[in-house]
Amino acid sequence: MAKVVTLGEIMLRLSTPGVKRFVQSESFDVVYGGGEANVAVSLANYGHEAYFVTKLPKHEIGQSAVNALSRYGVKTDFIARGGDRVGIYYLETGASMRPSKVIYDRANSSIALAKANEFDWAQIFKDAKWFHFSGITPALSADAAELTKMALIKAKEFGVTVSVDLNYRKKLWTPAKAQEIMRPLMQYVDVCIGNEEDAELVLGFKPKGVDVHSGKLDIKAYHQIFEEMKEAFGFKMVATSLRESYSANHNGWKILLYNGKEFFESRRYDINPIVDRVGGGDSFSGGLIHGLLTRNEQEACEFAAAASALKHTIPGDFNLVSEEEVLVLVKGDQSGRVQR
Amino acid sequence: MAKVVTLGEIMLRLSTPGVKRFVQSESFDVVYGGGEANVAVSLANYGHEAYFVTKLPKHEIGQSAVNALSRYGVKTDFIARGGDRVGIYYLETGASMRPSKVIYDRANSSIALAKANEFDWAQIFKDAKWFHFSGITPALSADAAELTKMALIKAKEFGVTVSVDLNYRKKLWTPAKAQEIMRPLMQYVDVCIGNEEDAELVLGFKPKGVDVHSGKLDIKAYHQIFEEMKEAFGFKMVATSLRESYSANHNGWKILLYNGKEFFESRRYDINPIVDRVGGGDSFSGGLIHGLLTRNEQEACEFAAAASALKHTIPGDFNLVSEEEVLVLVKGDQSGRVQR
Amino acid sequence: MAKVVTLGEIMLRLSTPGVKRFVQSESFDVVYGGGEANVAVSLANYGHEAYFVTKLPKHEIGQSAVNALSRYGVKTDFIARGGDRVGIYYLETGASMRPSKVIYDRANSSIALAKANEFDWAQIFKDAKWFHFSGITPALSADAAELTKMALIKAKEFGVTVSVDLNYRKKLWTPAKAQEIMRPLMQYVDVCIGNEEDAELVLGFKPKGVDVHSGKLDIKAYHQIFEEMKEAFGFKMVATSLRESYSANHNGWKILLYNGKEFFESRRYDINPIVDRVGGGDSFSGGLIHGLLTRNEQEACEFAAAASALKHTIPGDFNLVSEEEVLVLVKGDQSGRVQR
Amino acid sequence: MAKVVTLGEIMLRLSTPGVKRFVQSESFDVVYGGGEANVAVSLANYGHEAYFVTKLPKHEIGQSAVNALSRYGVKTDFIARGGDRVGIYYLETGASMRPSKVIYDRANSSIALAKANEFDWAQIFKDAKWFHFSGITPALSADAAELTKMALIKAKEFGVTVSVDLNYRKKLWTPAKAQEIMRPLMQYVDVCIGNEEDAELVLGFKPKGVDVHSGKLDIKAYHQIFEEMKEAFGFKMVATSLRESYSANHNGWKILLYNGKEFFESRRYDINPIVDRVGGGDSFSGGLIHGLLTRNEQEACEFAAAASALKHTIPGDFNLVSEEEVLVLVKGDQSGRVQR
Amino acid sequence: MAKVVTLGEIMLRLSTPGVKRFVQSESFDVVYGGGEANVAVSLANYGHEAYFVTKLPKHEIGQSAVNALSRYGVKTDFIARGGDRVGIYYLETGASMRPSKVIYDRANSSIALAKANEFDWAQIFKDAKWFHFSGITPALSADAAELTKMALIKAKEFGVTVSVDLNYRKKLWTPAKAQEIMRPLMQYVDVCIGNEEDAELVLGFKPKGVDVHSGKLDIKAYHQIFEEMKEAFGFKMVATSLRESYSANHNGWKILLYNGKEFFESRRYDINPIVDRVGGGDSFSGGLIHGLLTRNEQEACEFAAAASALKHTIPGDFNLVSEEEVLVLVKGDQSGRVQR
Amino acid sequence: MAKVVTLGEIMLRLSTPGVKRFVQSESFDVVYGGGEANVAVSLANYGHEAYFVTKLPKHEIGQSAVNALSRYGVKTDFIARGGDRVGIYYLETGASMRPSKVIYDRANSSIALAKANEFDWAQIFKDAKWFHFSGITPALSADAAELTKMALIKAKEFGVTVSVDLNYRKKLWTPAKAQEIMRPLMQYVDVCIGNEEDAELVLGFKPKGVDVHSGKLDIKAYHQIFEEMKEAFGFKMVATSLRESYSANHNGWKILLYNGKEFFESRRYDINPIVDRVGGGDSFSGGLIHGLLTRNEQEACEFAAAASALKHTIPGDFNLVSEEEVLVLVKGDQSGRVQR
Repeated sequence: MAKVVTLGEIMLRLSTPGVKRFVQSESFDVVYGGGEANVAVSLANYGHEAYFVTKLPKHEIGQSAVNALSRYGVKTDFIARGGDRVGIYYLETGASMRPSKVIYDRANSSIALAKANEFDWAQIFKDAKWFHFSGITPALSADAAELTKMALIKAKEFGVTVSVDLNYRKKLWTPAKAQEIMRPLMQYVDVCIGNEEDAELVLGFKPKGVDVHSGKLDIKAYHQIFEEMKEAFGFKMVATSLRESYSANHNGWKILLYNGKEFFESRRYDINPIVDRVGGGDSFSGGLIHGLLTRNEQEACEFAAAASALKHTIPGDFNLVSEEEVLVLVKGDQSGRVQR
Repeated sequence: MAKVVTLGEIMLRLSTPGVKRFVQSESFDVVYGGGEANVAVSLANYGHEAYFVTKLPKHEIGQSAVNALSRYGVKTDFIARGGDRVGIYYLETGASMRPSKVIYDRANSSIALAKANEFDWAQIFKDAKWFHFSGITPALSADAAELTKMALIKAKEFGVTVSVDLNYRKKLWTPAKAQEIMRPLMQYVDVCIGNEEDAELVLGFKPKGVDVHSGKLDIKAYHQIFEEMKEAFGFKMVATSLRESYSANHNGWKILLYNGKEFFESRRYDINPIVDRVGGGDSFSGGLIHGLLTRNEQEACEFAAAASALKHTIPGDFNLVSEEEVLVLVKGDQSGRVQR
Repeated sequence: MAKVVTLGEIMLRLSTPGVKRFVQSESFDVVYGGGEANVAVSLANYGHEAYFVTKLPKHEIGQSAVNALSRYGVKTDFIARGGDRVGIYYLETGASMRPSKVIYDRANSSIALAKANEFDWAQIFKDAKWFHFSGITPALSADAAELTKMALIKAKEFGVTVSVDLNYRKKLWTPAKAQEIMRPLMQYVDVCIGNEEDAELVLGFKPKGVDVHSGKLDIKAYHQIFEEMKEAFGFKMVATSLRESYSANHNGWKILLYNGKEFFESRRYDINPIVDRVGGGDSFSGGLIHGLLTRNEQEACEFAAAASALKHTIPGDFNLVSEEEVLVLVKGDQSGRVQR
Repeated sequence: MAKVVTLGEIMLRLSTPGVKRFVQSESFDVVYGGGEANVAVSLANYGHEAYFVTKLPKHEIGQSAVNALSRYGVKTDFIARGGDRVGIYYLETGASMRPSKVIYDRANSSIALAKANEFDWAQIFKDAKWFHFSGITPALSADAAELTKMALIKAKEFGVTVSVDLNYRKKLWTPAKAQEIMRPLMQYVDVCIGNEEDAELVLGFKPKGVDVHSGKLDIKAYHQIFEEMKEAFGFKMVATSLRESYSANHNGWKILLYNGKEFFESRRYDINPIVDRVGGGDSFSGGLIHGLLTRNEQEACEFAAAASALKHTIPGDFNLVSEEEVLVLVKGDQSGRVQR
Repeated sequence: MAKVVTLGEIMLRLSTPGVKRFVQSESFDVVYGGGEANVAVSLANYGHEAYFVTKLPKHEIGQSAVNALSRYGVKTDFIARGGDRVGIYYLETGASMRPSKVIYDRANSSIALAKANEFDWAQIFKDAKWFHFSGITPALSADAAELTKMALIKAKEFGVTVSVDLNYRKKLWTPAKAQEIMRPLMQYVDVCIGNEEDAELVLGFKPKGVDVHSGKLDIKAYHQIFEEMKEAFGFKMVATSLRESYSANHNGWKILLYNGKEFFESRRYDINPIVDRVGGGDSFSGGLIHGLLTRNEQEACEFAAAASALKHTIPGDFNLVSEEEVLVLVKGDQSGRVQR
Repeated sequence: MAKVVTLGEIMLRLSTPGVKRFVQSESFDVVYGGGEANVAVSLANYGHEAYFVTKLPKHEIGQSAVNALSRYGVKTDFIARGGDRVGIYYLETGASMRPSKVIYDRANSSIALAKANEFDWAQIFKDAKWFHFSGITPALSADAAELTKMALIKAKEFGVTVSVDLNYRKKLWTPAKAQEIMRPLMQYVDVCIGNEEDAELVLGFKPKGVDVHSGKLDIKAYHQIFEEMKEAFGFKMVATSLRESYSANHNGWKILLYNGKEFFESRRYDINPIVDRVGGGDSFSGGLIHGLLTRNEQEACEFAAAASALKHTIPGDFNLVSEEEVLVLVKGDQSGRVQR
């Protein structure tokens, strides 16, 4: 198993109990989560030495975020401590035609105000095999963008494979700002995860032969888009999840991967009911990284799909499944029969 | 926005946690609700000055019912205080083919024993635009029937538009008694809400050209029924919801409205899963009143349908949605995608 | 109504709240359950004088198991007290394609170490009409196998009808061991409940004309299997449930019964969502015994099917439904409409 | 152990979680309790065949009350079923100088409307050794007073020892009415439980030599009062608990008993913190009856004191302690050391 | 009853369940509270028309804070809506020698960034009798200090009585900054609430004849301090609570008031156990304002003491007691006997 | 900070919510704990590299125990995985004169059946400074006794300081058996923790000049006992906690330490209320080890006393306090004032 590093923000998630609305709630369920932290947890569950790099306050809320990671086996040695606040997101879980709602309260968190020189990059990347980040981290602040860039430079110095999840967040920046920051970072990226929307918003990428605004794209269109993305940015691989949203409780889900030569497509999962959608994309990234580190592309694709389908059935941000459990689903047992 | 008045009983609702059966429950979830109170909450949520008129004991259970209303913006200035008890209903939520169960324990509540002269009708209806009541209130007791009649007379004196939800409750009275009390009240009603069953039981109404007992009615039959109801009772409008019950968790839902000239029919919603069915009809009344106060009939119909479909996804009796949220659904987004 | 006796183990069930995973849980929901205890509860609910025979420690966890039975009307007069531990099973409830998981920790429980002479069989079977056991009890230990045999001998002495639920448990014994113990017990059995898999594993039964490993069997094949089982073991009746597993939340369900002459098949139920699958089979046995004690075979079959379909909607092991509720479903109302 | 019968009302108790106020509570904890039911539970815990006689509705709330009794070993064979409602009491638990509050909603309960001829008194009192009732039951209604009188007449016919807990409830009747009903019932009573206040209010009893309104009475005064009560009403024994109320959490507690010749006084308990005061007096009655049935007066006095002191540490109305646990405390271990 | 206005910040309070530590908590209890909001709730409970002035975001967390106020009768008409965040404080409740802990996360809240011209001061103070603020509000930001000053100027224009709770918060500002802002505001203040520490830190006040650092002050010393404070700042009244901290669960509590001529001292309360200390001081301010608006100084002093002693027994920030409940305690009943 | 190793069993603790009795509980709170695991958590909290050595099943309950340790910073690298069960203890928390109760169900746990050669002792003790075990581990089974002996031999080979907590458990072995196993292990022990009772039961130690059965011992007697223990077994240090049990909620607590020359005695703490007594002794061991590793004996004694006093205020087995928090209490602040 490999040393893997992810960098980003872990937030306090305050969610209403069950499917209560915000205005009805007399308590919030507490978990901690965030894109790259979720990826680290997935990788720790699959047996990797997964390090999550961030900055968190010294107080007990910061400590609780650290503990949430170490509880599930993520290495927290490189987490800087200081600053004032843990970023927060409030979550109201929807049902049927009522969508889930997220309210962010993450400005001025410790990681948003952290400096690149607060981290010992040489130690962080020594012997590492993979580095993963997302488009959320550089969007947090100018400092965080600088920090991300430094991490990428250092990762490449140490010969580490790099993946990015483009993940556009409209509450954090504009497309123009996103492209200004993100385009120059793409030179460090080996594996790009994101759909055509993210590519357009974050990278300013417009496929030549496809009208991405013409409603639902077919698989063919994705093939062309992925080829053009590879061409434009030099990615070794491009991957995306394809979600069909029927209701807050019922989605279709599959994975598409391009390795620069061939296209790989996973089985489609019909997920009903969805228990917790949040972290679905991150669990796909985590599954894909594990897959690419341990097996061929088709298997990686299936592993990532099954892993992330399972995430939708688990409360919280983290995908608390083992490699063994994912493989049972890869082998095709969707019957849900009781395991005694 | 308008001053709107509703009159009726608000009860303490004691429901089992999750889908536990009564005999399994070591605690009850507590909310307060009741037909006309639910309508008032809907209207307050849409921005109206909504007054709920009732009588509640001075003790803390009575106070909690008052607070439940003021918490969500309903005006409680005209709630009389006194008497001994808050009516109760016990609720067990069903699942799949197991139906939800309601046990009423509402006899001798403060409002059931209240007298018409305990309320300052002139203040209540001054500047009001709309008055809503249901067939439940006059069924509570002879006093409550008298009180309802007085309210209707006064509402008309002040030129207030009146709507009724016929709502037959077999535990409270017989069809014969219902018709004796309710038929004379129809002269004050502008907008009548109810289906053919309610009309038969509460008003003794039998459509000439339609066999209402021959199973499922088609839309055509409803058109004829509505025309005859208008004819028979002089209503300006007649409306009903059309529910298809597939299981305790899965219903179809749409709205039919007749304005004396034209018929309007909303989009059909497939609601799966249902979180809480109770108050579904009241949220339709609330949505319709708001719709008719602020837009044309077709829009009112769609607003009422979307609002009440959303209610089915919200725990408790009250429909805690904003006008903005309803309009998003009216515009057609049923995908349940996370709103960030 | 009849005196009915069941014999077996009742365990402490520790289940995660909602659909949380084991590693997320900071509390466990506590109920008590086990195959034959569940059958006794069903029968008590239908009005029978149902006795559950077992051994439980004197300490408070043992007492809590006794109380769980007496709470729902099961007679506990013949429960021996002593030994050290109550068997445990941990339950994690699945969702969608994630299966539920059971971890057993039941070795060395009081009943597993009990001796046949600790029970007053004459008192137990005096005036009894029916005795039910399952293939789980003799699998617990050599002592428990001996105890089961003694119970069967005594039941027959008192002219009691005997039913068995074959219920193979691979964590408790091997097919070889199961067959060594169970085959000699079949001479005492009147009604055998189990499918072709159980019959093969527990009884070493292989139908001549049917390939039970060739995927899904049709009803015809079951007819032949049942006829051969009757032939081979002398059962008066053979019955099984037929479960279609689409996901952890969605199953199809029906019942097949053979009385040595005719085949009876119940209506098929589409159960969605499933609230709690555990005890589904036991509630079928309970429903069938009640049915056979009180009505004809077709009615018994429908009663058993409706009763056990309802069980899937009820949290915990016990099927907390009345005869009246089952009959409403037998009559065909699956609409889930609120009962007021 | 003996057959013991108690008669009265068992109510649904709805209490706020922890020490929340009524107006803060979004859920109520649910237990069932009531003076004579609590006594029956105590006696079942000590090993007696304890029957509770009442009437409860057939619906599930009524059934839950029955189950609450059978769960803890009380015999429910003589509970009549019918009527509409289970009486309710709301409980808010106090802290420090804030008192606990009870709001009653018990009018028109099934037992309040029950008739004496709905019960098979011969079966009820056959072989019974003791009958216990309280001043609450005849206060419920004229019917309930009649019912109580009939029970007393029948108890005496069967030679059953009778105890009463005078228990004046000012919300249920006036002193004048209480005395009119209760005084004639005293001829059937062997053991009278109550303090000087209850005796004055319920029996119109005024001790000649003692000013009961002059603040705190000393033990001497109680001796005189008890002697006079015995004289006036012919009781064989008189007993009372003596409570010192320092705060909602801290009470002193002891027991005084007079057997017509001698006075017995228990050890004094300092109870801090009190977990749940409700049922404290009933647990004293239960302990006293058990004591008088099984040992001498001094021991009975100590048993009753220790048992009822322990009740104050147990949530709910019922005193869930075994004889063995009471005896450990009687022997003097108040250290609260962990029992491993 | 009077129109009373308070101005300040209401925060989301996230507290650990029971006495769990932060690092153990998987959920947070949610209430809303803050110094001046708490005062408004007290006054609404006593029957006043209490307005709370603040600014809150339009999103659902902001709305929940508004609802928390209207639920308990506070008028929210003058709450501005906008900005991004609701200030937060995390609370861990201590026990015995372990202190409670508060972690603030309130920077950049809507009210901290609000401008004075966002409020309609004329409407706010029209017909108002009293205005209350605290030293926390001007400490939030320069804008908030400006806003506070404007409110004071306007209050005085409308002839409103003004009270301040000095309340030094070391996390928000330094003594130097506090004095720079607060000293000029004292000219508008009629009633000053605060002890010698607050006076030194917030006002730079040093009594001439008393060494405030010499440990515990006696009542005499307070008399001198209050006289000097009146002299120095022109207050009409000065008041303080005197807390003795024995442990996290056990405090002594009394009130001292000076009306410029005489000193008034309340009864001392021994509070054990403390349920929730937060808001204790605010409930004293609320009780004092009500007392001074409705009765003489000695009575006001006793009312304030009893009201705030009771607050310590109530979960959450708000003092949910009625005038009637306070008066029972003023009359001296601290026995905590159950009120039936 | 130092590498510290502890060895023993970590159990699943199932405790009733609040102070409910076992027979009332519908759920159990879940934490994991055990003597030496608790010590490891204390040491990790104080900043040490604390390793806990045990064996746990591979299933999810075993994994949850591992996670509970890593969550709070304990190193789990040397935990063997395998076997069938996690030992369990049921806990009912007492109140006032009602004691807490523990029911053990720990036989045949993975660690009880583990062999010495399943652990890499060289890696475990490399660079370690301290090894701690208790008298519970060798009591689990013959294998566990062997394992403990091997660990001690290896610890001494690596020059590691060894401490033992004698901790006699009467449910696990007899005094004779304890002495047979434990006496030979004392040669490896540097620091012995235990009182005169444990010394008598576990070591067969009888002080010459002191009657340990004559009730409460004074400090002088302890001095003599400690001197004799040192003499008899060659300990470098002897220490004990001195608990005064007033009730389940109120204890006195202090620490006595003897370093072979001098006696050290900590301040006495009055703990009221106790939140959770379990792990009190372990937190004393953890505090003492930290104290002896970082400061002089008097300071170590005070640190251990304050740390373990604080444990009594924290739910669960683990002492979740930082060095900083302990030092605040050592400095004398027991006021429980809110820390903002």
